[in-house]
Amino acid sequence: MDVLLRCINSAFFLSHDMRRDVEIYLILQGEPVPPKTIKLVGNELKYLNPDERSTAALLRNALTKKIGKEEELSTPGIYISRSSFEEVIEALAKKSKLVYLKEDGKDFQPKAKNGDYTFVLGDDRDLSDEEETELQKYEPDIVRLGPKSYPSDHCIIMVNWVLDKISDPN
Amino acid sequence: MDVLLRCINSAFFLSHDMRRDVEIYLILQGEPVPPKTIKLVGNELKYLNPDERSTAALLRNALTKKIGKEEELSTPGIYISRSSFEEVIEALAKKSKLVYLKEDGKDFQPKAKNGDYTFVLGDDRDLSDEEETELQKYEPDIVRLGPKSYPSDHCIIMVNWVLDKISDPN
Repeated sequence: MDVLLRCINSAFFLSHDMRRDVEIYLILQGEPVPPKTIKLVGNELKYLNPDERSTAALLRNALTKKIGKEEELSTPGIYISRSSFEEVIEALAKKSKLVYLKEDGKDFQPKAKNGDYTFVLGDDRDLSDEEETELQKYEPDIVRLGPKSYPSDHCIIMVNWVLDKISDPN
Repeated sequence: MDVLLRCINSAFFLSHDMRRDVEIYLILQGEPVPPKTIKLVGNELKYLNPDERSTAALLRNALTKKIGKEEELSTPGIYISRSSFEEVIEALAKKSKLVYLKEDGKDFQPKAKNGDYTFVLGDDRDLSDEEETELQKYEPDIVRLGPKSYPSDHCIIMVNWVLDKISDPN
């Protein structure tokens, strides 16, 4: 859970501002009733603060919500569903370019920012072989961020930063 | 305090590893008895984990330690002293190149990594005018990281990343 909290901070926070053009999908596969996917939508989010405690409370809210077949709104900008990794990736492949962050990928050199990217990364473990096989169906770019192995939340900051510089090169 | 905890995480953590060549100086100017400076030394640190709670406990340990004129060791790799901003900057200027991270600086394009850098940045507020005047005495490079305004802990991740790529360009 700690990793997820830090990833959310990395995805959305600027100094005294938020990134409204970002969405994050947290695909939870642990017990008791996997899978659950929490989606956070930047331009709808309220009550999100940089500290881990308050974000943890928002996620707990979402996780304790009763969900059936459909995605449910938990608090503004935070949705919960029973979507699996396969379903989330399939949906995102239709509306964005998939980029798989992996240590043996090629260097990250995104083109001009036209259209949306979805970056796929594990938490403190890599994707499983099954998840990787599923992802490969959509022929993602496979990208490494640098010479070291970085925590997921740090990767998100790097990716946001690179995209910032592309969309505003001056 | 939350900002400091996140800055420590950013400064030291890799995925399943730590940056042993990093030091961070947290210069605390709040009441009751300012200034206090907490120094964390990467190659001596023990008991540091990525989560904010355990790091908070280490800092609390340091802050409750009795200190006189000399710097005191709190837990392995964590030192506490009564050093002021002026004293910390003066000492670091002697052994490293100072870089001041500021939104109206020039682009960050460090040369090959020879020698050490010290990056100076505020928490969620900028440096005060007095601190800036003090820092300017040492003619720091004044550098902006990108087109947006970033939280301090995100800046530290970016700086570490840029230095990684310089020291290992392949």
